[in-house]
Amino acid sequence: MQEETGHDGPPASLAGVRALVFDVFGTVTDWRASIIEEGQALGRDRGLDVDWGAFADAWRAMYGPAMNRVRTGEMPWHNIDALHRMNLDELLPKFGLSEDEKQHLNFAWHRLRPYPDSVPGLTRLKTRYVIATLSNGNVALLTNMAKHAGLPWDCILSGELFHAYKPDPVVYTSAAALLGLPPADVMMVAAHGGDLRAARAQGLRTAYVYRPTEHGPDRTAPFDSDPLFDIVARDFVDLAGKLGM
Amino acid sequence: MQEETGHDGPPASLAGVRALVFDVFGTVTDWRASIIEEGQALGRDRGLDVDWGAFADAWRAMYGPAMNRVRTGEMPWHNIDALHRMNLDELLPKFGLSEDEKQHLNFAWHRLRPYPDSVPGLTRLKTRYVIATLSNGNVALLTNMAKHAGLPWDCILSGELFHAYKPDPVVYTSAAALLGLPPADVMMVAAHGGDLRAARAQGLRTAYVYRPTEHGPDRTAPFDSDPLFDIVARDFVDLAGKLGM
Repeated sequence: MQEETGHDGPPASLAGVRALVFDVFGTVTDWRASIIEEGQALGRDRGLDVDWGAFADAWRAMYGPAMNRVRTGEMPWHNIDALHRMNLDELLPKFGLSEDEKQHLNFAWHRLRPYPDSVPGLTRLKTRYVIATLSNGNVALLTNMAKHAGLPWDCILSGELFHAYKPDPVVYTSAAALLGLPPADVMMVAAHGGDLRAARAQGLRTAYVYRPTEHGPDRTAPFDSDPLFDIVARDFVDLAGKLGM
Repeated sequence: MQEETGHDGPPASLAGVRALVFDVFGTVTDWRASIIEEGQALGRDRGLDVDWGAFADAWRAMYGPAMNRVRTGEMPWHNIDALHRMNLDELLPKFGLSEDEKQHLNFAWHRLRPYPDSVPGLTRLKTRYVIATLSNGNVALLTNMAKHAGLPWDCILSGELFHAYKPDPVVYTSAAALLGLPPADVMMVAAHGGDLRAARAQGLRTAYVYRPTEHGPDRTAPFDSDPLFDIVARDFVDLAGKLGM
């Protein structure tokens, strides 16, 4: 049924959704292109000859295993800034960077660039829904990123608040509880099927946004959707359209 | 020294401040006028003859003692929505309200009206500082209030995240840690001297904003400043001016 605004409402099965929570790295922001740019700028300043694409991939590849050391209890709680820094220190001992340069590079994750549809899509979605991060990135990282990139979040939610990393179920259930909503009234938005399957197992609704270039222009990311996801969208503007906005 | 923008910078002693965290009830929003308005609207609908000023004062007066029951461990963790509801149920058994009406009235705290200077002041402060709530209100309440009132927070911080209520020291130190800052780089802004003294004891900077009408037009709130506070301001626009913006 067409509403007077000329837009359909949301699909009937999603009429109860009040909040959208977003994965960030690779869903909202293009981590790989951003880290490469930051590396290239540093490389020019310091005359470093580095393959920054390989560097970004190597740094990112260390992220999952580092979180696993926390998940399994092998290491006590460390937030993502701390894990990024441990991994960076392992990756570039030979570059001869100063402490200030290392910290600046580590905080490149606070300055990631949004995909072109992220700000316009979020701005539109915010008119009907509470929009929040739900990321393994720490609160300071997500807050600084939002300020830097103009991401209009209503609320910053992070695994850091629960000292747990997605896909730990407690991250999804605690986020819904902090929003004062039953899980079924919250929709997780992510470019990663595993994140969405874990959210769905806790009763959240799910929207898959396909980001084929997450791993660079030369390696198309797998289309990791699932017939059980509530929405599949090309980008955040398409997501708004599929929610009848 | 005058900068080229025509504005002084911040006082030299505050040059390191990166984030401002704000008390909310009575500092950002006028809880008393808002609760009275909501009560009056309900009273008109339901033909209730209630002194809504006295009602607002009575409800608010139960807030501190309820938090104390949590602080002392007499009661397990309850967030402010839950405490407001317990107090409301004690206050209005005889009004004959439905469950929906009670819940609507309880959530009046999610719809508090900002003081006239709050949105323009925060919008200006946000151009230089990370601005965040640091309230005993729960995350959902603060998030909904921001959306309702157009408060442009970068981040929602609440005692709820630490299962503690101000002036518990852990609220101030944990907020700074989540922002990734040493306490001295964070300034607490409040209309209540006790909140600021507790923040200062943990190393935060302090700005007192005097809200003489917090307790209504007929009872001037005490001027509860302290020579140790870094800034004393009339409102948020004045605060921006005193920070050289």
